Amino acid sequence: LSRKISDSAIRRLSFYLRILEQSGDEGVRTVSSRDLAKRIGTTAAQVRKDLSLFGSFGKRGLGYSVTKLAESIRAILGLDRRWRVALVGAGRIGAALFDHEGLRIRGFDFVAVLDADPEKVGRRWRNLKVRDTSELPEVVREHAVDIVILAVPAYAAAGVMDLAEEAGIRAVLNFAPTTLRVSEDVTVRDVNMVMELEALSFALSHGEDRE
Amino acid sequence: LSRKISDSAIRRLSFYLRILEQSGDEGVRTVSSRDLAKRIGTTAAQVRKDLSLFGSFGKRGLGYSVTKLAESIRAILGLDRRWRVALVGAGRIGAALFDHEGLRIRGFDFVAVLDADPEKVGRRWRNLKVRDTSELPEVVREHAVDIVILAVPAYAAAGVMDLAEEAGIRAVLNFAPTTLRVSEDVTVRDVNMVMELEALSFALSHGEDRE
Repeated sequence: LSRKISDSAIRRLSFYLRILEQSGDEGVRTVSSRDLAKRIGTTAAQVRKDLSLFGSFGKRGLGYSVTKLAESIRAILGLDRRWRVALVGAGRIGAALFDHEGLRIRGFDFVAVLDADPEKVGRRWRNLKVRDTSELPEVVREHAVDIVILAVPAYAAAGVMDLAEEAGIRAVLNFAPTTLRVSEDVTVRDVNMVMELEALSFALSHGEDRE
Repeated sequence: LSRKISDSAIRRLSFYLRILEQSGDEGVRTVSSRDLAKRIGTTAAQVRKDLSLFGSFGKRGLGYSVTKLAESIRAILGLDRRWRVALVGAGRIGAALFDHEGLRIRGFDFVAVLDADPEKVGRRWRNLKVRDTSELPEVVREHAVDIVILAVPAYAAAGVMDLAEEAGIRAVLNFAPTTLRVSEDVTVRDVNMVMELEALSFALSHGEDRE
């Protein structure tokens, strides 16, 4: 299934979920595919197509029940459970993630923090003691880690990725500015803020050419 | 031009540039499209195609000059100049970005920090005094801001975006978990860490189905 679903469809499901939750908070009980479409700048047909990939929701003309559709999307995205996350890299970006309320709310719990710097190892991050990065395989086993967040420098990323794969990790959120080579059953999502700025730089430069 | 170049091609240019710079540091003088391709897991044909969009580099069989190709890609990406960045949102994510060495190295300079919280306004962030978010249009004019980074909560994002557009900003890096509606000549890049984790949750959930 997951092979057939495009990244952009998954992204839209995340957006639908946010709209539904907000609508629910505002006391709204049903929404149409049109409402959802308008909010994220797509078409009603696209919304229906996205949702039809996972079954049949709502009734034609009646719209979707806000609570039921939100629940279904949470189940589709695997957000009807909690995930155990290990953070590798106890730097600034790591700290911002560690304190990010949105992660906990959505079901992602930090169960370990690791760093290669002996100065940082042993320090407390809330209720966690920072472990040495080389211990990643043990940490993954001890804490039944599901997801590894890589917030390390580019030169360190491949080494940590090897440790993570060795430990059987199949999902990695990568903040290091490098392409990780992984086996087929590992999913890596890259977040690279500098590259996003480079894309803006490109757009600004070539926008100016057009003027 | 920029309309025809896919996001993924721009992303690859950013990766080529990193590989070239690293190769240069290691004393390598020429690279082939094959070398570049291998490093990011694509084909030599793809590399040649990406580069041919912007002119002719290197000679068949001789490979590319590392320094010249890096210089050309920097020019293509608009990284042969410096960009003036305003950060809106003086929270954890804002702080991580503000201290991110990679941004400065690549030519992105923070010229202003703004926040809507009166507690934060007036505080010093290195040599900058935090300004009130409502002053964004003046700040953009005073400091000739090119790019706005939005690191504010979802509910505040649309309001700040309106101010930014009013001030003539055409490039926004958005960390708020919401879709911004902007006019055609504004480029928005979204970075949403929770949604990336949701995509991993999806992959893990449906991976398990397959087993």
